[in-house]
Amino acid sequence: MTVNIALNRTIDNSYDVEIAPLSKIHFDTKVIVVTNPKVSGFHLKYLLENISANELYIVTVPDGEEFKNFSTVENILENLFNHRLDRKSLLIAFGGGVIGDMTGFTASIYQRGIDFIQIPTTLLSQVDASVGGKTGINNKYGKNLVGAFYQPKKVLIDSHFLSTLGEREYSAGIAEIVKMAVTFDKDFFEYLENNDLKKTEVIEYAIKRSVEIKADVVARDEKENGIRAALNYGHTFAHVIEKESGYGTFLHGEAVSIGMVMANELSVKLGLMSDNEALKIEKLLDTYNLPINYDVKSVNIFYDAFFLDKKSSNGKISFILAKGIGDVEIKSDIADEDIKSVLTIFRS
Amino acid sequence: MTVNIALNRTIDNSYDVEIAPLSKIHFDTKVIVVTNPKVSGFHLKYLLENISANELYIVTVPDGEEFKNFSTVENILENLFNHRLDRKSLLIAFGGGVIGDMTGFTASIYQRGIDFIQIPTTLLSQVDASVGGKTGINNKYGKNLVGAFYQPKKVLIDSHFLSTLGEREYSAGIAEIVKMAVTFDKDFFEYLENNDLKKTEVIEYAIKRSVEIKADVVARDEKENGIRAALNYGHTFAHVIEKESGYGTFLHGEAVSIGMVMANELSVKLGLMSDNEALKIEKLLDTYNLPINYDVKSVNIFYDAFFLDKKSSNGKISFILAKGIGDVEIKSDIADEDIKSVLTIFRS
Repeated sequence: MTVNIALNRTIDNSYDVEIAPLSKIHFDTKVIVVTNPKVSGFHLKYLLENISANELYIVTVPDGEEFKNFSTVENILENLFNHRLDRKSLLIAFGGGVIGDMTGFTASIYQRGIDFIQIPTTLLSQVDASVGGKTGINNKYGKNLVGAFYQPKKVLIDSHFLSTLGEREYSAGIAEIVKMAVTFDKDFFEYLENNDLKKTEVIEYAIKRSVEIKADVVARDEKENGIRAALNYGHTFAHVIEKESGYGTFLHGEAVSIGMVMANELSVKLGLMSDNEALKIEKLLDTYNLPINYDVKSVNIFYDAFFLDKKSSNGKISFILAKGIGDVEIKSDIADEDIKSVLTIFRS
Repeated sequence: MTVNIALNRTIDNSYDVEIAPLSKIHFDTKVIVVTNPKVSGFHLKYLLENISANELYIVTVPDGEEFKNFSTVENILENLFNHRLDRKSLLIAFGGGVIGDMTGFTASIYQRGIDFIQIPTTLLSQVDASVGGKTGINNKYGKNLVGAFYQPKKVLIDSHFLSTLGEREYSAGIAEIVKMAVTFDKDFFEYLENNDLKKTEVIEYAIKRSVEIKADVVARDEKENGIRAALNYGHTFAHVIEKESGYGTFLHGEAVSIGMVMANELSVKLGLMSDNEALKIEKLLDTYNLPINYDVKSVNIFYDAFFLDKKSSNGKISFILAKGIGDVEIKSDIADEDIKSVLTIFRS
């Protein structure tokens, strides 16, 4: 006897990303805002001038990737229980990617899931982390190894928050914007070459275009079985760089910048990209003082580290390679020698 | 500027519940079976005669509701990491509702979600816990307060496992079968009155019909915003009984049996059910030695305890009341006096 359980055919998880200054919003429910001391110091007043709720509580968790763990999630959960949040209550993630990942994950497991809204305050989280529904925490085995695919109800992007970012943090966000352009949109890449991303109207357009590109990719492949992997362009190398150099040495966007340069060398070697195109990308990254060099101390150690990454589960590594500018290819059949010879270029 | 993120329109989470003896299945992937010492002692040999995989590991966790907590989930996660399960790997929940809830929750958060299959071994989990995708754990604030809605890929129900259940556990499962019949299917109720649920073909039919009813309800309301709440018939009372008497005094199904009798008294009082119908239900429960009496020591304490339940979030309690036999009504506007006068009937 078999009974088929038909589910989810009509569920609609779609949501809006609004790129505009925050304006007075009242939530007719209990709200907990999750943030960190840095963001709240700079911006909590501005947030509270624009957001109100029937009951509103602030939970402040320590700032930094090293606190993106289950212990912090437990701390947030404790607050939800203490303030008796119910299934109609709302979490607001107010901060960068770490706050977004943890708040989203907490929302996904509290009473089997309550609503959450993202108000990302860093450029990186505005262009990247706010779209896609990836939530999660790190543990001793690696980054983002525990988590859920869980979509926010809304994302509010206000470029006001970018004013307090340091230059390195700002540029780290630009790296992800460049990634979107190189892999999916040649016109957008040319726009980036010809406009100053430090101007408000330029960065707002670049955020919008990045969000659109990512939204399109995620809609086609929410659970990352195919094309969504293309968003990891530069990341296969970046993960090794971050680990090898010690987390915190490079900002994630900085490691991605180097990773893209490395991936491009591989593209050039395999005939997928011209030298000239690779140089154009380097030049754009360099304009914003993003790192484009790295010192590979041991080619073999660097190479072996690829296999410890989550994405190389079956003993194979997929490389996401730009095909010229504006297109992308996922290759998992690259010869060891080709990869190693590219790594050799980066050996001091 | 607003970008709409369109998601999930095509995702299909449907799955099959197969009610049949297990027969040789090979999984072409890594598999971890999560079970407890009792189930594995009785049935692991039988399971391994029927199930194989490229790599298969057994994780045994302590038996009992008191171990349905995050610490056990962490223990399971550790095993998944140690055995390097990847996103294509599979978890099998092999046990009762506790094992199913924890294994499903672990599957939902490991690397943002991997597949799991349920092989429920108790009657209660076969008729109830295996359909609906509710996973979760308890914490100091209450039962199932942390968790996810996460659907299995398949549920395999084999009545072979029921042979080792104690009589009380078997009857506790019957309480949930009676619940399905009373709330949704008069014909099924009559079938239950006229057939012996200790016979294999009868119990298999009753499991199938219960699964069908629940599947239909869940398909109409996966996230419990409406009709799915009807499955909580008897449970509003049962939760208070379980808490007040101390978890473990009554099996969950036993508390539900008493809870249904209490709810029926309320139905009778409100004119939704005849005395005769209430008696028929009591008689059926009594046939399988399910408890139908309870000693309410203090009407006020019992009444106040309703409001601590997860389902009474906004200060109102919804009661799920049977409307005769085969229909159900959700009422949240019942006068305190009516509720208390019903509780008085159960005062010693």
